[in-house]
Amino acid sequence: MTHLEKLQQWINDQHVDVAYISDPTDINYFTNFYSDPEERVLALFVFPNAEPFLFTPALSVEAAKKAGWSGDVFGYLDQEDPFALIAQHIKARTNQPHAWAIEKDSLPYARFAAIKRAFPAAEFPADASRYMERAKLIKSPDEIAKMVAAGKEADECFRVGFDALRTGITEQGVVAEINYAMMKQGVMHMSFDTIVQAGVNAADPHGEPTSTAIVPNELVLFDLGTNHQGYMSDASRTVAFGAPTAKQKEVFDVCLEAQLAAMDAVKPGLTAAELDKIARDIITKAGYGDYFIHRLGHGIGTSTHEFPSIMAGNDMPLTPGMCFSIEPGIYIPGVVGVRIEDCVHVTETGGEPFTHTDKQLQIIPVKD
Amino acid sequence: MTHLEKLQQWINDQHVDVAYISDPTDINYFTNFYSDPEERVLALFVFPNAEPFLFTPALSVEAAKKAGWSGDVFGYLDQEDPFALIAQHIKARTNQPHAWAIEKDSLPYARFAAIKRAFPAAEFPADASRYMERAKLIKSPDEIAKMVAAGKEADECFRVGFDALRTGITEQGVVAEINYAMMKQGVMHMSFDTIVQAGVNAADPHGEPTSTAIVPNELVLFDLGTNHQGYMSDASRTVAFGAPTAKQKEVFDVCLEAQLAAMDAVKPGLTAAELDKIARDIITKAGYGDYFIHRLGHGIGTSTHEFPSIMAGNDMPLTPGMCFSIEPGIYIPGVVGVRIEDCVHVTETGGEPFTHTDKQLQIIPVKD
Repeated sequence: MTHLEKLQQWINDQHVDVAYISDPTDINYFTNFYSDPEERVLALFVFPNAEPFLFTPALSVEAAKKAGWSGDVFGYLDQEDPFALIAQHIKARTNQPHAWAIEKDSLPYARFAAIKRAFPAAEFPADASRYMERAKLIKSPDEIAKMVAAGKEADECFRVGFDALRTGITEQGVVAEINYAMMKQGVMHMSFDTIVQAGVNAADPHGEPTSTAIVPNELVLFDLGTNHQGYMSDASRTVAFGAPTAKQKEVFDVCLEAQLAAMDAVKPGLTAAELDKIARDIITKAGYGDYFIHRLGHGIGTSTHEFPSIMAGNDMPLTPGMCFSIEPGIYIPGVVGVRIEDCVHVTETGGEPFTHTDKQLQIIPVKD
Repeated sequence: MTHLEKLQQWINDQHVDVAYISDPTDINYFTNFYSDPEERVLALFVFPNAEPFLFTPALSVEAAKKAGWSGDVFGYLDQEDPFALIAQHIKARTNQPHAWAIEKDSLPYARFAAIKRAFPAAEFPADASRYMERAKLIKSPDEIAKMVAAGKEADECFRVGFDALRTGITEQGVVAEINYAMMKQGVMHMSFDTIVQAGVNAADPHGEPTSTAIVPNELVLFDLGTNHQGYMSDASRTVAFGAPTAKQKEVFDVCLEAQLAAMDAVKPGLTAAELDKIARDIITKAGYGDYFIHRLGHGIGTSTHEFPSIMAGNDMPLTPGMCFSIEPGIYIPGVVGVRIEDCVHVTETGGEPFTHTDKQLQIIPVKD
């Protein structure tokens, strides 16, 4: 069954009259057409007993067809009212769409309200966001292959980034070298803005690379990934530029022990919460529990962050084909920040990482 | 009055009990704190008669304070229910928030529903998206100065990009050179993915740079911009790599005439629709009207595309301080694509562009 046929089956099971798929990544999942419409309207409408149609800005109609979508594509011009046109196209396929499935996590309120205005009797019993989570949860061998390729690209990013370290280069300068090297190889989209943070900057787990010059005897944290044919990589390494201090090394060792223990523990049947606890207990026992202020990991696939969260309270058992990050971090404000991360896919017997860059504390020789 | 005080005044005028600001760019507008929370919850709550508070993921609390937000910041951990915490914090400030303002254009349905669950009597009479549009419409001199700086960066991108053209370089390779040059100068965020399209590829107005090698005697279309301290630039130039054909030159000349006529016509009092028509009539009269399939322009500021659209049906009069693009395009599938674009700000007497790269057909000498 195709992705679309499975969605239609779910629509039938849910007694839904029409499903409105609005997330561009999800539209790509069904149509092989990816476009970020920004403020314009891009939508896929799927029915139990009628042909689906794609609705796009006029300037994307040709691209949608070229991408391989063979169903109807209806375009609209900027000065037209998209939801008036959508209502007409829907009425041509189903007379009284009563029960709707929408992507509740991403559909903006205003578009929900536009549907409600065009179809005042509409109700929204089914959440297509929950369907998409489940549909994408277990990756096929073909999807795993793309994520393996994305992981290889992330390893190449680390190689370029470590090689770029020298006295006086800024965090931003290292990012420039990584992104440039990837674009020269045709990797046009990082999966998120590349993070390089040196010294105490790394203690801000959500900070941005700065124009701070990197100096010897600091840890440098890299967090990066690429988008390979719509599938993401995401990995972190922390290295020492010159000799680390005893404190830096101590914090690093605790984080690495936690990461390796969690990597080693991955297997079908273990729950997400149990996996989080394995890493967290090690960090807590070492006295750094208060400095590990995020979940152990997140699902990954066609988005960098997706279902499921690897965290306390999530009793979902790990299952072969699930892909997620394992990324303990210790952030001591003003002192040091360390994060070590691989994404893995669950196999029949354990977990297989997508990235293979050495995780032991690498000491990058100081050079000018 | 500060941005926040103006919002509070609007809240009072609308008899709203609480405003929920959810768009990260808008949160930055009020707090000076920018963060993309991805799937996590970042929110600013503003009240008529109580102190506003910022609600962020735990890992962003310190960054929000460091950015200069001096009000309360409440964090939440990944395993906590953000809307349960938000409800507690709101109830500590206002007992029965009945009338809500939300950003209807961007707030996802699921978050609207979470509010509705926590406050079953809540109603949503006020659309903060419409307020933000109006609040941001007229740029201050300080904002214009940032957009001038962003425009200068876009001009620098064109210089680098034109210089990178040589036989055999790919569209993607030219993008790599542009983005690398900017990052080396500390410009870490383009305002959107840089577009370089050669030959017939440029006839797809929403296409992506490909691995196609650029060959002599093609037009090459550049569309790019930078983010300068939160303010965007956006500009397009089409140049000839080697001698253009007669057809390429003819289409270029029509597009340029339309662009220059619209630039020249900008003045307070003219409507957006009238401005669109000035450019469109020239293209239509030349026989290419069917190939100009988008609006003449869009507002620009803290987002690349914002209010207002410069298009048929928009009778809003241009006003000093408004900033928008003027970007006629002619896209003949399989033949040629041309777009020429500046963003301008409306002055007391006309329009002043943010970009100054020559718009006459530049012929880039062929080199290897």
